[in-house]
Amino acid sequence: MPRYPNSAGSLSDIGGAVYSSLAHRLVTHDGPVYPLHVGDTWLEPADGCRMEDLKVAEHPGMHRYASPQGVPALIEAIAARVGRRTGVEVARESVLVTGGATGGIGAVMGAILDPGDEVLVLAPYWPLITGIIRCFHGTPVEVPFVGPVDSVETAVAAVEHRVTPRTSALYLSTPNNPTGRVFPESWVRALVEWAADNDLWVVSDEVYEDYVYRGEHTYARGIDPQRTFSVHSFSKAFGMAGNRCGYVVGPRRMMSELCKVSTHSFYSTPTASQLAALRALDGRGDSWVAGIKGRYRQLGDRAAERLGVDPPEGSTFLFLDLSGKMPEGGLLGLLEDCADRGLFLAPGPSFGSYPNHARVCFTSAKPELVERGVEILAEILSR
Amino acid sequence: MPRYPNSAGSLSDIGGAVYSSLAHRLVTHDGPVYPLHVGDTWLEPADGCRMEDLKVAEHPGMHRYASPQGVPALIEAIAARVGRRTGVEVARESVLVTGGATGGIGAVMGAILDPGDEVLVLAPYWPLITGIIRCFHGTPVEVPFVGPVDSVETAVAAVEHRVTPRTSALYLSTPNNPTGRVFPESWVRALVEWAADNDLWVVSDEVYEDYVYRGEHTYARGIDPQRTFSVHSFSKAFGMAGNRCGYVVGPRRMMSELCKVSTHSFYSTPTASQLAALRALDGRGDSWVAGIKGRYRQLGDRAAERLGVDPPEGSTFLFLDLSGKMPEGGLLGLLEDCADRGLFLAPGPSFGSYPNHARVCFTSAKPELVERGVEILAEILSR
Repeated sequence: MPRYPNSAGSLSDIGGAVYSSLAHRLVTHDGPVYPLHVGDTWLEPADGCRMEDLKVAEHPGMHRYASPQGVPALIEAIAARVGRRTGVEVARESVLVTGGATGGIGAVMGAILDPGDEVLVLAPYWPLITGIIRCFHGTPVEVPFVGPVDSVETAVAAVEHRVTPRTSALYLSTPNNPTGRVFPESWVRALVEWAADNDLWVVSDEVYEDYVYRGEHTYARGIDPQRTFSVHSFSKAFGMAGNRCGYVVGPRRMMSELCKVSTHSFYSTPTASQLAALRALDGRGDSWVAGIKGRYRQLGDRAAERLGVDPPEGSTFLFLDLSGKMPEGGLLGLLEDCADRGLFLAPGPSFGSYPNHARVCFTSAKPELVERGVEILAEILSR
Repeated sequence: MPRYPNSAGSLSDIGGAVYSSLAHRLVTHDGPVYPLHVGDTWLEPADGCRMEDLKVAEHPGMHRYASPQGVPALIEAIAARVGRRTGVEVARESVLVTGGATGGIGAVMGAILDPGDEVLVLAPYWPLITGIIRCFHGTPVEVPFVGPVDSVETAVAAVEHRVTPRTSALYLSTPNNPTGRVFPESWVRALVEWAADNDLWVVSDEVYEDYVYRGEHTYARGIDPQRTFSVHSFSKAFGMAGNRCGYVVGPRRMMSELCKVSTHSFYSTPTASQLAALRALDGRGDSWVAGIKGRYRQLGDRAAERLGVDPPEGSTFLFLDLSGKMPEGGLLGLLEDCADRGLFLAPGPSFGSYPNHARVCFTSAKPELVERGVEILAEILSR
């Protein structure tokens, strides 16, 4: 039991310190920096959807609390959009606006986990997912997936192999962060149906739904809306990561439980961020996506070609297997070598058991910076 | 163990449904509404500190992620301010910028609690505190305090009576929400010293530090900085509740643990909100406080006089004991009677074991609305 001077036991498994040498280099590096370790965009949000566009004269009280569920007009717009996209009607009560997708997934995990409950996490995975589960005293169970899985049968076998009586949910992310893969519809369907056979919740992280370059995005909610929490974000869709505004759509009867958790985590999503999101949903956001998607794809394709890997199917990432290209210092040594030249990559172990991988984001800096960063990496790898 | 279709057991004790009849009336009420149940202000933030003042041209990338700890310039300004106010130097590493004070207290509780750990909560208390503790699977222990306690001795006896081997922390709020009391320095000192004798953390909620009308605010951190997490907010100080920006100052060696929790709850505090806070800290916020504090006090004094209770010493609330004035329907009936006339109050049970109390916020609506709301309440009570 922790008392002063100790901290919660659940946090000791949440890492970070190993890479403090990289963080230090990021802060102290002289010369140009290529920050390809962050999942973000170099672009500003669409005109009309920026903070400077939100005037008190037009929105009196816009610096006051919003309702914990969200601004009513935004909830309505989200319900309409998700209903259209998934083909399943969405009640307003099924929507919760959250502090980014992070806050949304936190609300889900807080609402479904008792201490010691397990969540199957398809790997490689979004780095925050295991920490979110641990914060609520759950246990993440890594399921090696992208790579080993190449069919519906192997997809189901992968999860089947790791389910226990304590398993509460299955977490998946497609378009996948960090691999850039888009799961085929048949896999998503098989996974959701398998979850149903095992009485599990499905937590479907779909924040890159708008960035699919090959194949098609599958909405898990369309398959089993009573079981699925789908998590979306304005951050990735419309270049608003700093606004911290995302949303969860889930089974209506569970949403008040989620709202209890979000209310007690950050109370409400920032009011101005919700107003900006509402503006983006009037068409300006989709135009912004239409205007930039081709450029994102081109950047991903070029980076993949230069690095000798398959082009991304979606998202804004490449996940590189660097086995056989390691210097003596292993992955950390390699990442330090990159950092010494101003290039920052996300280390593979943040995404699961990937001691020899690194993630590159090909949209986190201006295209010329991304291209130069990729060039530096190619040089370092082939030395 | 919850699996589909069940939810986490810890949430079942977080209430809300009892008052759904009031929520329904709030949404459907015809005619003027007096929303004295919310803790907020009718004012817009200071000129220059609003979202419309934050231009991309001046802050390129301002819609991108901020660092999870916070915007460096804001951290520096906070460290300087808290150092000045408390008389104890604050390292930048001791500051965490959070999604409001709610996110800050969440980060503290997530960092110090194992499942089943207890937190002593001085009552009446801020309504969200017990739910935050429960979300992290801790157990809030209510300590009847404001009212029964009238000396250092009775203050210590109150907590002494409820400490157990599972107690991890003591939570207090002064200026107090909901009572409007400002705890004397001698009480705060005795409580912090008692916590030290019992190896407990101190979580000191000081979000109303700028609104003291009688007496003086005591910074718990000034008494024992190694043990104290002090929680502050730009919401209450500068009329920015919707921005969701607050901060925690605590022992340096614990802050990376807090940052793990906040990172996994909402990742980072909205970037624009942090830029707005930084502007407020350049003097514009303090001028705003100086300009309005007298008005707040006057509103509180007038409301107290009309309702026949002591004037507030601080905060923006009065906590009314309505025993003996109840209609047949009890508190809920009384609150429904108020709601039928457009007046909304926060029910006593949200603040602890107060079945016959209600909280009035005297700044949540324009002064003329507050005055009319108070008048309606006075009429209902004396019928």
